[in-house]
Amino acid sequence: MSTRLAELVERLGGQLRGDDALRIDGIAPLSEAGASHISFLSSAKLRAQAAQSQAAALILAPADDIALGDSYAGARIVTDNPYAYFARAAQWFAARNAAPRVPGIHATASIHPSAQVDASAIVGAHVTVDADAVIGPGATVEAGCFVGRGARIGNGTHLHPNVTFESNCRIGSNGIVHAGAVIGADGFGFANEGGAWIKIPQTGGVLIGDDVEIGANTCIDRGALTDTVIEEGVKLDNQIQIGHNCYIGAHTAMAGCVGVAGSARIGKYCTFGGAAMVLGHLTIADHVHISSASMVSRSIHEAGQYTGFFPLSKNADWEKSAAIVRNLASMREKIRDLEKTLSQLIEKKNE
Amino acid sequence: MSTRLAELVERLGGQLRGDDALRIDGIAPLSEAGASHISFLSSAKLRAQAAQSQAAALILAPADDIALGDSYAGARIVTDNPYAYFARAAQWFAARNAAPRVPGIHATASIHPSAQVDASAIVGAHVTVDADAVIGPGATVEAGCFVGRGARIGNGTHLHPNVTFESNCRIGSNGIVHAGAVIGADGFGFANEGGAWIKIPQTGGVLIGDDVEIGANTCIDRGALTDTVIEEGVKLDNQIQIGHNCYIGAHTAMAGCVGVAGSARIGKYCTFGGAAMVLGHLTIADHVHISSASMVSRSIHEAGQYTGFFPLSKNADWEKSAAIVRNLASMREKIRDLEKTLSQLIEKKNE
Amino acid sequence: MSTRLAELVERLGGQLRGDDALRIDGIAPLSEAGASHISFLSSAKLRAQAAQSQAAALILAPADDIALGDSYAGARIVTDNPYAYFARAAQWFAARNAAPRVPGIHATASIHPSAQVDASAIVGAHVTVDADAVIGPGATVEAGCFVGRGARIGNGTHLHPNVTFESNCRIGSNGIVHAGAVIGADGFGFANEGGAWIKIPQTGGVLIGDDVEIGANTCIDRGALTDTVIEEGVKLDNQIQIGHNCYIGAHTAMAGCVGVAGSARIGKYCTFGGAAMVLGHLTIADHVHISSASMVSRSIHEAGQYTGFFPLSKNADWEKSAAIVRNLASMREKIRDLEKTLSQLIEKKNE
Repeated sequence: MSTRLAELVERLGGQLRGDDALRIDGIAPLSEAGASHISFLSSAKLRAQAAQSQAAALILAPADDIALGDSYAGARIVTDNPYAYFARAAQWFAARNAAPRVPGIHATASIHPSAQVDASAIVGAHVTVDADAVIGPGATVEAGCFVGRGARIGNGTHLHPNVTFESNCRIGSNGIVHAGAVIGADGFGFANEGGAWIKIPQTGGVLIGDDVEIGANTCIDRGALTDTVIEEGVKLDNQIQIGHNCYIGAHTAMAGCVGVAGSARIGKYCTFGGAAMVLGHLTIADHVHISSASMVSRSIHEAGQYTGFFPLSKNADWEKSAAIVRNLASMREKIRDLEKTLSQLIEKKNE
Repeated sequence: MSTRLAELVERLGGQLRGDDALRIDGIAPLSEAGASHISFLSSAKLRAQAAQSQAAALILAPADDIALGDSYAGARIVTDNPYAYFARAAQWFAARNAAPRVPGIHATASIHPSAQVDASAIVGAHVTVDADAVIGPGATVEAGCFVGRGARIGNGTHLHPNVTFESNCRIGSNGIVHAGAVIGADGFGFANEGGAWIKIPQTGGVLIGDDVEIGANTCIDRGALTDTVIEEGVKLDNQIQIGHNCYIGAHTAMAGCVGVAGSARIGKYCTFGGAAMVLGHLTIADHVHISSASMVSRSIHEAGQYTGFFPLSKNADWEKSAAIVRNLASMREKIRDLEKTLSQLIEKKNE
Repeated sequence: MSTRLAELVERLGGQLRGDDALRIDGIAPLSEAGASHISFLSSAKLRAQAAQSQAAALILAPADDIALGDSYAGARIVTDNPYAYFARAAQWFAARNAAPRVPGIHATASIHPSAQVDASAIVGAHVTVDADAVIGPGATVEAGCFVGRGARIGNGTHLHPNVTFESNCRIGSNGIVHAGAVIGADGFGFANEGGAWIKIPQTGGVLIGDDVEIGANTCIDRGALTDTVIEEGVKLDNQIQIGHNCYIGAHTAMAGCVGVAGSARIGKYCTFGGAAMVLGHLTIADHVHISSASMVSRSIHEAGQYTGFFPLSKNADWEKSAAIVRNLASMREKIRDLEKTLSQLIEKKNE
């Protein structure tokens, strides 16, 4: 289903240069785009590649538009944030190519009589919806999902297959939860008595705002006494673990394999690289960026980027560095001895 | 459903001070507790907060009881381990508020004719129980679970939704397995021949003791020829990976995202912080505590706490430290040169 | 079901020494093997143990055969790669002991009319197969799996329970996907606009070659515009995260908890220890081996072993080392000062 370039610009804005009757079938990377594709230039580094692109049209920034000049012959949409424009254009094409949405409850789904499933929702095969749960208008609950007692799935929110959404947890509107995610498992809370562990019942829930995306096989634990909270616009990748009673501020994004221990309080607009870890009960300010594989062991009160991982080396070199790292205290001692000896020597000389 | 304070003390012990006819609705943190709540004081640091709490009653230690004196006006339960008492009290309230347990097999469950499901067990919607599997008295198998051929679920053990419990694996009584956990997937075993990998069939099982809790999306692999063993009282958080033929001693606890490679033998009463990693074939003694994000690459024969992660810094500072870490051998060389030069100098001087 | 030793050798090769009419019931480790078992000697270090083994027969290398001499009295199969031979023999016994394969679609499975399920395939209880999906000859799709629109499961490939295999993803023949794995969830792609994240639709797929094994709860994301690719013979353990548009070369193996960020291009015959991490958009050459818990932050163009993790110490020692690591720049400064002072001293002396 092709789209006129002019129609795209009517909907998404930007300044169109070139043939507005041009018809586009879809989006492709610069190197693979052909005569029916639109592509995008998200960095000045790609100008040379853009000049040689076979794309029918390019989305690009004003400076890149000027720099390209006549070297690229196709149509252009000029906009201040070409990457965001690309995202919206891709959404537009994806929506046009999507399979039609057929509301209804699959015959094999098991819905408790007290649950409320909106007539515009889709509930797939082998889904279980427990007592008093609510599935909102336009929501989609794919095959094999479980929605627990009293849980609420907001308007237009989409649970991919085999999601477990436990009792009394809530997610707002236009969310996406990918396959295998577990929302509302018990937090890890035990009291120790003579070496053995006594379980602390986890009676809080999980409260998730609007426009939140949760990756495949990611877990968000329910709170102990009060709720775990994920604010609006948060984006979590796959295989993430969020402990009980964490609070994650709006629009914070975490890449795959991140772990956040219980009761951590994380600000808004933060980013976490893959496999970053955060200890429990810490506070992290807004606009903090943690590099991949870095361990946050103290609270961070100042915005900025923070890093902490051992640099990679050839194994033989690492062996040497690691041995020294384990004995840095003795190295410091040697330096102190040198300083002392040297200053004594100088003192003597000056006597 | 409120409880008389005296009833709590009759069941759980402790010394009651104050109005024993007081009725309590539930437990709340110090800062949020109101006139119908009991709260608890688990650390002397919270005494000031406790003094100002609106809680009707407090669980606290003898020393805190004396220290608080008249500054707190409510009732008190004095006990040596207030946190363990809180856990038991919370269990008591949670049990009273729990939905009634209705034994039976859901109409949509698929139970092999040779499987044995006790009449007091609950089997949820879309569950599959394969040949010769046994579901014990009082067990709960929630929606979407799979229980493989010959597997055994002990008395009172609870599988949350979408758990996969593979063939010939066994779990004892009063266990909890959270959603999405996979017990008994094949261990990662291959022989290499000319670069390609030849699969070694994994024909052992997983043997799990009583009172074990297993977190959401955690995996415990089946053994290659013999069983993987998890002893009684072990507590595993979410997203943990336990390799084939591991042996984990009683009452050891592991926080989220921990990984243990195959054939590691871990003692009793150990704790592992989040994302700690253990190499294969190692032995770890009893009462060893591994900090978060630390890598255990050698056996540990002595109890104690062990740590190994790169400390977090501002990214620019880390860049400097990391560059030096990679060249520590040359720094050591420089120190040796300095030592040599200095000692030659001193020698000459003394000549 | 016992097997004559001679039959094993007829099928798998190797040189038989001893009673070829000997009947074997199965394989066991050296220490546990009895008079009806065959065992194997995979390392010269185990010769002493082999000499004392009660195994009826041993698989071993020529050098070990000679070294053992008369110290071991049982039969022997001599072969150049005893570990690979053991793997094949174990496969042979496992196949003989496996439950019979009964093709067919379980009555509770939900199969879209346009899906094609081969008559020789097995589809378990509560499985969902969406429109236009293809399940090949001899494939097995266990209980609770989801196979999305247009997805293809190759000949003889086995999906364990509760796998989610999303739309338009493909896996070749003789693959194994363990329970809870998620193939084809959306890659983590967003454009940022004024702090908020705009989703980039992920319209590529996942393309998996033949003979690939994928561990429990492992995730492989679908590509953004083009496919994520896993070549033939790749082996992935549990809890692994593979980002969108990664390319993983043939016969590469990754242990549990590894994370690979988007668009990384990894060579053939590589190995990754548990919890190793790879940043996005990197290139890693063939035959690169990354140690456990190591972070790959730059491309690697040369084969070899690479490592980068902070060595474990007693916590008190780590505290000291970590404090110094954070201040290595000042230590380097001190060394420079010492060098300068010392050389000035020497200069003066020589004046």
